[in-house]
Amino acid sequence: MIDIAARIRNQNYLSKVMTPEEAATLIHPGDVVAVSGFTPAGYPKEVPLALAKRMEKEPFQITLYAGASLGDEIDGALARAHGISRRLAYQTNKDLRRQVNDGSVAYADYHVSVFAQLIRQDFIRRPDVVIVEAVAITEEGNLIPATSIGTTPAMIAACNKVIVELNVTQPLSLEGMHDVYEVANPPAREPIPICHAGDRIGKTWITCGWDKIAAIVGSDIPDAPRSFKPVDENGQRMGDHLLAFFREEVRHGRLPKNLLPLQSGVGSVANAVIQGLIQSEFEHLSIYTEVLQDGMLKLIDSGKADAVSTASISASPAGLKHFYDHIDTYRKKIVIRPQEISNNPEVIRRLGVISMNTAVEFDIYGQVNSTHLYGTRMLNGIGGSGDYARAGYLTIFFTGSTAKDGAVSSVVPMCSHVDHPEHDVDILCTEQGLADLRGLSPVERARTIIANCAHPDYKDQLTDYLDRAIAATQGDHEPHILAEALSWHERFKKTGSMKI
Amino acid sequence: MIDIAARIRNQNYLSKVMTPEEAATLIHPGDVVAVSGFTPAGYPKEVPLALAKRMEKEPFQITLYAGASLGDEIDGALARAHGISRRLAYQTNKDLRRQVNDGSVAYADYHVSVFAQLIRQDFIRRPDVVIVEAVAITEEGNLIPATSIGTTPAMIAACNKVIVELNVTQPLSLEGMHDVYEVANPPAREPIPICHAGDRIGKTWITCGWDKIAAIVGSDIPDAPRSFKPVDENGQRMGDHLLAFFREEVRHGRLPKNLLPLQSGVGSVANAVIQGLIQSEFEHLSIYTEVLQDGMLKLIDSGKADAVSTASISASPAGLKHFYDHIDTYRKKIVIRPQEISNNPEVIRRLGVISMNTAVEFDIYGQVNSTHLYGTRMLNGIGGSGDYARAGYLTIFFTGSTAKDGAVSSVVPMCSHVDHPEHDVDILCTEQGLADLRGLSPVERARTIIANCAHPDYKDQLTDYLDRAIAATQGDHEPHILAEALSWHERFKKTGSMKI
Repeated sequence: MIDIAARIRNQNYLSKVMTPEEAATLIHPGDVVAVSGFTPAGYPKEVPLALAKRMEKEPFQITLYAGASLGDEIDGALARAHGISRRLAYQTNKDLRRQVNDGSVAYADYHVSVFAQLIRQDFIRRPDVVIVEAVAITEEGNLIPATSIGTTPAMIAACNKVIVELNVTQPLSLEGMHDVYEVANPPAREPIPICHAGDRIGKTWITCGWDKIAAIVGSDIPDAPRSFKPVDENGQRMGDHLLAFFREEVRHGRLPKNLLPLQSGVGSVANAVIQGLIQSEFEHLSIYTEVLQDGMLKLIDSGKADAVSTASISASPAGLKHFYDHIDTYRKKIVIRPQEISNNPEVIRRLGVISMNTAVEFDIYGQVNSTHLYGTRMLNGIGGSGDYARAGYLTIFFTGSTAKDGAVSSVVPMCSHVDHPEHDVDILCTEQGLADLRGLSPVERARTIIANCAHPDYKDQLTDYLDRAIAATQGDHEPHILAEALSWHERFKKTGSMKI
Repeated sequence: MIDIAARIRNQNYLSKVMTPEEAATLIHPGDVVAVSGFTPAGYPKEVPLALAKRMEKEPFQITLYAGASLGDEIDGALARAHGISRRLAYQTNKDLRRQVNDGSVAYADYHVSVFAQLIRQDFIRRPDVVIVEAVAITEEGNLIPATSIGTTPAMIAACNKVIVELNVTQPLSLEGMHDVYEVANPPAREPIPICHAGDRIGKTWITCGWDKIAAIVGSDIPDAPRSFKPVDENGQRMGDHLLAFFREEVRHGRLPKNLLPLQSGVGSVANAVIQGLIQSEFEHLSIYTEVLQDGMLKLIDSGKADAVSTASISASPAGLKHFYDHIDTYRKKIVIRPQEISNNPEVIRRLGVISMNTAVEFDIYGQVNSTHLYGTRMLNGIGGSGDYARAGYLTIFFTGSTAKDGAVSSVVPMCSHVDHPEHDVDILCTEQGLADLRGLSPVERARTIIANCAHPDYKDQLTDYLDRAIAATQGDHEPHILAEALSWHERFKKTGSMKI
C-alpha cells in the first residue's frame, strides 16, 4: 500500500482513500472523463490503467478530455482496450493515433488555449468525472498539482466528481511552483496581469473542495518523459540559421539585446536553438512556452535565463531526474501555468513572444501544414502552434527540407492541409537556410522560399511549377495550377517519391 | 480656396498651408507613402489625386501603406496612374485588384490587427511620408481624426514628414468620439484596459507635433461611402438562422441574455442579423467591430445598443448623412478606435466577441477561404476576419450556398485556399441552414455541413466525394482524394459549372 496519508492534509477525509480498481468503478459507460496532464507530465496513471483493465473485461467506451497529450497509461491503455469513442483536444500516442486514422475514435483537435473555455462556456459536454494527479490535498480539499496544470481548474469547476491520484514520485517541493490563475467567462473577464514571463498572478493550488472529491488513490508510477533524439546535423544547421537571424534582428534594433520571451515546440531544432543560445553572447533571456525541455533546464543552469514560464515539465528521463534533484534551484526561475494562460493570445501578444514551431510541410507561398500527412492522416494535432503563431511578435516555422531520405520535399507547391495561413508566418527555416517573408507578395515569397529553404534536388521542380503557374493564371496574386497543386503528394503515394 | 483657418488652432503655422499639387511634390519616386483611412472613411483625397495627376505626367511609382481599404481617390487613381509598385495591407478597389492579379502590384496581405506593429517593430520599411485626413490640428500640432483612425498613430510615430488634409466636409463635432490608445513595443507593453465595448482608455487626438507637419491642405471632397445591396431573401434566411441560434444559446446558458459584443463583417447578411436584432427581444446589446454600417446606426436608434466600438464610420451615403445629422446623439454611444485596438486579440478574447464574417467558400471539414477565388485570384484580403475568428468567443462564417446562379457550390470538397483553419470555426451558415461544429470530428463535421449548409443540388455530389474519400483512405482522420479534391474548381473553370 502506497503511503499517502501525509499528503492528505485533513485527516477527516482519509476514508475517501480507495484502490484504483474501486475508483475506476465510479466511471460509467458513456461518461465524459476529463484528466489532468499536459504532455506526459502530471497525468493520472493508476485509475486509467484500472479502467482499461475493467474495459477489457466488460467492454464499454468513454469520451476522454485532456488538454494535451498524455502518457501511454491513458491514451495508449484505453485505446488498446477500445475504450475511447471520442477524444479532445490533442494527442501524440501511437495506438490512439491509429484509431483516430481508422475512423474508430472521433477526434476533435483544438488550439491549446481554447480548450478550457470550451468546457467553461458549455460548448462541449461537461465532464462526468475528473481524474487529477496531485502531489497533495490541502486542508480545504484543494489540490497541489504535479508537473503540469493543464485544463484541470476548468474541468473541476465544471464537474462534481473528482478522483485524485496522489503520486509519491512527484516531490512535495513542487508546491509553490504553480501559478493557478482562473479566467472568468465574459462579460466578467478581466485583464490577465502578466507583463513579464515570470510574473506570478494566481494561487499555488487548484480550487476543488472536499465535497467534490469522490476518491483518493495512491500512485507510485512516475511520469513517462520522452527521450529526445540528440541534435543532428540538420537540427544544428537550423539552430545556427536562427541564431544568426536573431543577431541580425538585434543589430537592426528589431529585437532587444536579450531578445523577447521565446516559445519553442518539442524536438531537436528547438533544442539546437536553445543549445546555441547557451553558447552565445545573449543574456537575461526569458522563456514563455508550453513545454519545458532539457535545453531550457540547461539554459537556467548556464545562468542565461531570468525566467521560464511553461505549462509542463516535459524533460527527458535524465532531464526530469536532474530537475527533481535541483528543484530548489529551479523553483526560483520556473513558473508552471494552466494551458489557458501559457497559450493565451492576450499574454503572447503583450509579451511579444518569439514563436518557433515545427512544420510537417510548407508551401511556396508560406502556408504551413502542422497536422496532416498527405492531407488526410492526423499526426498529433495543432497543439499550441496556432496560439503562438497568430499572436506572436515574430513567427517562425522550421522543418528539414526533405523527409523519407529525400523522397519527400517539405517545400511543396501547395500544402495538402493548411493549419497556419501565410498571413501568420514571418520566417521559414530549413537546414538549407532561412526565408524572411515579411512584407513580401506571394510570388516574392515563393522565390525566396525556393531559393533559401528548398532542397537543391527540388529547386528546379518548384521553380518550374511556379513559372508555369504564373503563366497559366496570367499573374494572379497567388498563382497555382489546381490540377497539379497536390500532385506531388499523389506522386509520392504512387511512386514512393515526389521527384518527377 | 477652402477655408480651413479655423481648423488650424495655432495661427503661427498657417504658413504650412499649400495646394494639393504643392504638397504632392513632397513625395518622391520610390517613397513609401502611408495614408490614414479605414474603409472609404477618413482617408486623404486631395493630395493622392494631385499625386496621381503628377504620375500621369512624369511616371513614377511608390509603395503605398494603408491599414485597410480606401476610397477610389487613392487606390483607384494611383493604380490607374500605374503609380503603385507595392501595397500593404488590405484593399477592395477594382482597379488595384486587377493589378494585384496581373502581377504588376506586389501586394502583401496582413491581419488588420498586426499592421501597426509591423511598422512599429521595423519589420517593413518606414514610411517616408504620411498623408492624414483630419478635422482639425490642435494648438500643439496634434491631429483630430475624421471618420477613422486606422494605423495613423503608428505611421506618424515612424515618420517625420506628415501632410495633413483638413476636410471641411467632416464635422468638427467628430472631435471627442475617438479613443486613441497607443500600444508600446514589447517588453514595455502593458494590458490594454478595455473590459467593456464602450470603455474609453486613450486620447481624443493623434500625437504628431508641428515639427513633423510638412504641409497642410484643405479638402472638401466627402468620404465615398459604399451603397449596400438591400437584404435579399438569402441574407434574410441566414439572419433568421443566426437569430434562432442565438436564442438557443441563451436558452442553454451559453450566452448571456444581452449576448456578447458582436462583430460583423461588411455586407447583406451582417445587416440582416442586425436588422433581426432590432426587431427581436434582445436588449442592452453591444458591438465591438471594425466597420460601422447602417444597421448599427439603426440599432442605436432603436435603443437596443448600449455601446458601439468601431474602427470606422463606414455607412452608406444615406447612412453617413444620417450619422452626421445626429452626431450629438451618436457620440454618446460610439467609440472610434485604432485598428490595432478594434482588432486586438487581447481585447477580443477578453470581451468574448461573437465573430461573424463572410466566407468565399468553405469545405466539408470546415476550412474557410476568405480571400482567393479559385485559389489564385485575390478578392480583397483577409482583413480583420482572422483577428476575430481566432480570438472570438464564438466564430461564425456565412455565405450563400451557391454562387454564379448555382454553377458554383460554396461548400466544396477542399477549399482552394485556406485562410481560417477548421480549428477556428464553430458555426457555418448558409441560407440552407446552420452547422454547429463544436466538439465534432472532421467526418462528423462533414456530415453536418453537407446536411445543413450545402445546396440540395450539390448534396449528393458532396456525400459521394466524402464516402469515396473515407473508403480510399480507410478512414483517415480527414479523408480526401487528393487527385479530386480541387477538381470542382477546375471543372467550373473548364465547363462553367461545378456540377458533374
